[in-house]
Amino acid sequence: MKVYIIGVGLIGGSFALDLKAEFEHAVIYGLDQNKQHLEEAKSLGLIDHIANPEDVEDADLVLVAIPVDVNIAVVKNVLDQVGEHCLVIDTGSTKSKLCKSLEDHPKRRNFLAAHPIAGTEFSGPGAAVKNLYRNKTNIICEVEKTAFKLQEKALEIFQKLGMRIRYMDAKSHDKHIAYVSHLSHISSFMLGKTVLEKEKNEKDIFDMAGSGFASTVRLAKSSPAMWTPIFQENKDNVLETLTEYINNLTHFKKLMEENDFGEVYSEMERTNYIKTILNGIH
Amino acid sequence: MKVYIIGVGLIGGSFALDLKAEFEHAVIYGLDQNKQHLEEAKSLGLIDHIANPEDVEDADLVLVAIPVDVNIAVVKNVLDQVGEHCLVIDTGSTKSKLCKSLEDHPKRRNFLAAHPIAGTEFSGPGAAVKNLYRNKTNIICEVEKTAFKLQEKALEIFQKLGMRIRYMDAKSHDKHIAYVSHLSHISSFMLGKTVLEKEKNEKDIFDMAGSGFASTVRLAKSSPAMWTPIFQENKDNVLETLTEYINNLTHFKKLMEENDFGEVYSEMERTNYIKTILNGIH
Repeated sequence: MKVYIIGVGLIGGSFALDLKAEFEHAVIYGLDQNKQHLEEAKSLGLIDHIANPEDVEDADLVLVAIPVDVNIAVVKNVLDQVGEHCLVIDTGSTKSKLCKSLEDHPKRRNFLAAHPIAGTEFSGPGAAVKNLYRNKTNIICEVEKTAFKLQEKALEIFQKLGMRIRYMDAKSHDKHIAYVSHLSHISSFMLGKTVLEKEKNEKDIFDMAGSGFASTVRLAKSSPAMWTPIFQENKDNVLETLTEYINNLTHFKKLMEENDFGEVYSEMERTNYIKTILNGIH
Repeated sequence: MKVYIIGVGLIGGSFALDLKAEFEHAVIYGLDQNKQHLEEAKSLGLIDHIANPEDVEDADLVLVAIPVDVNIAVVKNVLDQVGEHCLVIDTGSTKSKLCKSLEDHPKRRNFLAAHPIAGTEFSGPGAAVKNLYRNKTNIICEVEKTAFKLQEKALEIFQKLGMRIRYMDAKSHDKHIAYVSHLSHISSFMLGKTVLEKEKNEKDIFDMAGSGFASTVRLAKSSPAMWTPIFQENKDNVLETLTEYINNLTHFKKLMEENDFGEVYSEMERTNYIKTILNGIH
């Protein structure tokens, strides 16, 4: 099986590692705009060979794992080149615009729109780890538009990598993921900003920070190159979540200003319900 | 050594566990308003005996680990009763009002104001764990007001429990801790609220949530009974941090609305500096 990984960072690199472990005949070719990342991916053993864009014509599987501002053009180019039996998977965090752009592509049936909810706050080939996808959710959008045989092929791969599959239309995906993923990143980045602005000249202060702060601000280490296009692509949904978040914070502030600590208590007690939900997430 | 732990929850219970491990002659007496917690603490082996408030008169060490709306009155009562050689330690998360209230107490020199930056999002005796304090920061306020011999005694205990000591005045403590701890809790609670409000009728949606969401929303599991008094006691500082946080979020929202994604990128890139700081926190 000839596999081409376009984007040999955290997502693509981790996928390559598991694929090699599960499919002994897989030969992994890597592509990346960043030549240094390609060399690193090769020396780390994530990929077997460095490839050129025109090589994908004999691919069995192409995985596109690059920022969402460039993935549409790349997926289109790949689809233009690949053969009838080739499966092309995109792993980006937004799906509506991509699915819309590809709906009339003559090779739409070779394409599968996926979003593995997996990752860390790190990026690049050095961030790739084995078993990143084990027990993680993989959202597949508009599965009915992918050829049946290629759906089967994709499911076999995802199953071997240990993923749980959820099916969803692209619009619902983008709306809900804004709440459970994109907003978390903004809340964390702005928390980091607020504290850094205040405390930047007092480094000792961070000795006071405990694991709670580390946990809430962890996502503020994330890659701006990955997240800027996500916020741009999913602008309307993200703005909606952000508005509601600001409103809730403003309401909480008002309760405190008015010394309504009974209601401050109730707000937190109601939100404790999140415990029940988080029990399902690792 | 006769040790009285007032409040046998996460903080007091964990302290008791380590104290018993490090001081073989320590006998631990427990007090708590919650009788069920007391029984639980005894059956879990956190405490040796259940005690009454009047028993503290023969204590060598009293640790007060209760919510900050009730700790001042309790510390005063304890100080009124204990002997000259007894060390009384409070572990609350706010310190200004407590230190102010005690400044003219005739036994002020028996008291040490501490804030161990340790804990989890869980509470109660069942949440107590060994080595909670190892490699954690312990902030001591106004150390010069504690008798020299009792300072020594406190430091010996904190060292055996593995804590790093930092000295600070109570006002600075409350100001900085609002940034690096209290604000994180509000940001997390309101994130949880925002997502729950939107998604409460669609439980499947939380299958989409990954470890990033779990991390940022973890503190929203925290105890309202502990956190409401903290926000109330530290109201002015917390409101200041909350105002700045809301301003930063509103600015980020405005950048997105104006499609200034170059600046969105820069905001995140600047905040990535938090990586350097977080390397020191576990």
